[in-house]
Amino acid sequence: MREIAVVLFPGFELLDVFGPLEMFGINPEAFSITLVAETVGAVASNQGPKSWVETRLEDRDDYDMILVPGGRGTRTQVGNEPLLNWLKSASEKAEITTSVCTGAGLLAKAGLLDGRKATTNKISFDWVQSQSDQVHWVKEARWVEDGAFWTSSGVSAGIDMSLALIEHLVSEEVATQTALYSEYERHADAGWDPFAKIHGLV
Amino acid sequence: MREIAVVLFPGFELLDVFGPLEMFGINPEAFSITLVAETVGAVASNQGPKSWVETRLEDRDDYDMILVPGGRGTRTQVGNEPLLNWLKSASEKAEITTSVCTGAGLLAKAGLLDGRKATTNKISFDWVQSQSDQVHWVKEARWVEDGAFWTSSGVSAGIDMSLALIEHLVSEEVATQTALYSEYERHADAGWDPFAKIHGLV
Repeated sequence: MREIAVVLFPGFELLDVFGPLEMFGINPEAFSITLVAETVGAVASNQGPKSWVETRLEDRDDYDMILVPGGRGTRTQVGNEPLLNWLKSASEKAEITTSVCTGAGLLAKAGLLDGRKATTNKISFDWVQSQSDQVHWVKEARWVEDGAFWTSSGVSAGIDMSLALIEHLVSEEVATQTALYSEYERHADAGWDPFAKIHGLV
Repeated sequence: MREIAVVLFPGFELLDVFGPLEMFGINPEAFSITLVAETVGAVASNQGPKSWVETRLEDRDDYDMILVPGGRGTRTQVGNEPLLNWLKSASEKAEITTSVCTGAGLLAKAGLLDGRKATTNKISFDWVQSQSDQVHWVKEARWVEDGAFWTSSGVSAGIDMSLALIEHLVSEEVATQTALYSEYERHADAGWDPFAKIHGLV
C-alpha cells in the first residue's frame, strides 16, 4: 500500500488532480489518497469547485508518493517558500514525486528537477521552463520519467502518466484493468504527444 | 451563460464529476458551476477525496443544466425520494439534463428517461437497466442524446459527452479548443464504444 499526498492550493486545475486520483483510487488495495494543503478547509480550484482538505502540509511530510497539480494557482505558489520547502523535504522521503501540467513549475522552482529530464503543459511551456534553466526540458512527451521524478504534460496527460505509474508500481494487467474500468482509451506510449506540434513547440 | 448544477452524494465517482467540470470550466464565459447536495459541507467521493458543497438541493431547482454523476453511491441514492423528486423538478426547468456512468440509474429511477434512449456504464449496465424497463437502453455508445437528456457511458465518457455538449451549445471551434487546451484526444463520435464489446454487452 502506497499513500499519495496530493498538494492542493487555490487555483489548482481540476482534472490535473482528479484524473490521476480516479486511476489510483480505482485500486484502493494498492494506493490511498490524502489531500494536503497549507491550511485545513475548502480549497477552490481554477474552475471554481472546492475540495475539502483535512491534512496540513506542516502536519506530515512522510508519504510514499507526492502529486503536484498545475493550474493558474502555480503562478502564485512559485513564490510560496513554505510550500517549496515542504516539496523538498517530502520528495526526499517519497519513493515517487509526480507533477501534472504546470505543477512541474513548482518542482522546478524548488530545484527538484535540476539535472533531470522533465516535461509540462504545452501552452505554458515557456513559463514553466523559466522556473529553472538547470532542467532538461522535453518539449514532445506525454510524460517523462527520470528516476523518482515523473512529470506529465498538460491536464489530461496526468491520466496516462498515472496509468504508467500503476503499471510500473503494480502491474501491466492492473493498469489495463483500471483503464477498462474507467472506459478510458489509454495512451501507453510516453512519446505520444500531438499537442507539442499543435502548440508550436516542435 | 449557462449555470450547471452538479449533484453530489456520498460515494460519487471522481472523474464522472471532474472530467466534465474541467471541460465546462475551461469556458467560464459560457458556463458557471454550482455543486449541490442534500446538505452543506464536505461530501466524500467513492475514491475518498471530499468536495465542498455550499448549496443545498432544497435551496434551488432552477438551473440551466443538471449533471448527475455515477459511483457506488448511486446504489443508495436510488432509494432517496427527496433527491429523486429534486431531479424531477430541476430537470423540468433545465434546458439540458445529463448523467455520467451509473448516474443514469438515478434519472431512470426518477422516471425521467422513460420512453427515451439512454446509455450508461458498461460494467454496471444490468443494474442501471433494472431501474426502469421503460427506457430504450443503448448498449453500444459513448453517449446518447435524446432531446434534453444526454447520458454518457462509464467514467471518462463524460469528458467526450461534455465536449459534444459544448459543441452543441457553443460551437465546434470552442469544443476543439477546449480539448486542445486540456491536451485531450477527443472522441467526437457518439457511436465510438469499444468497451461494450470488451465488457460483453454486444
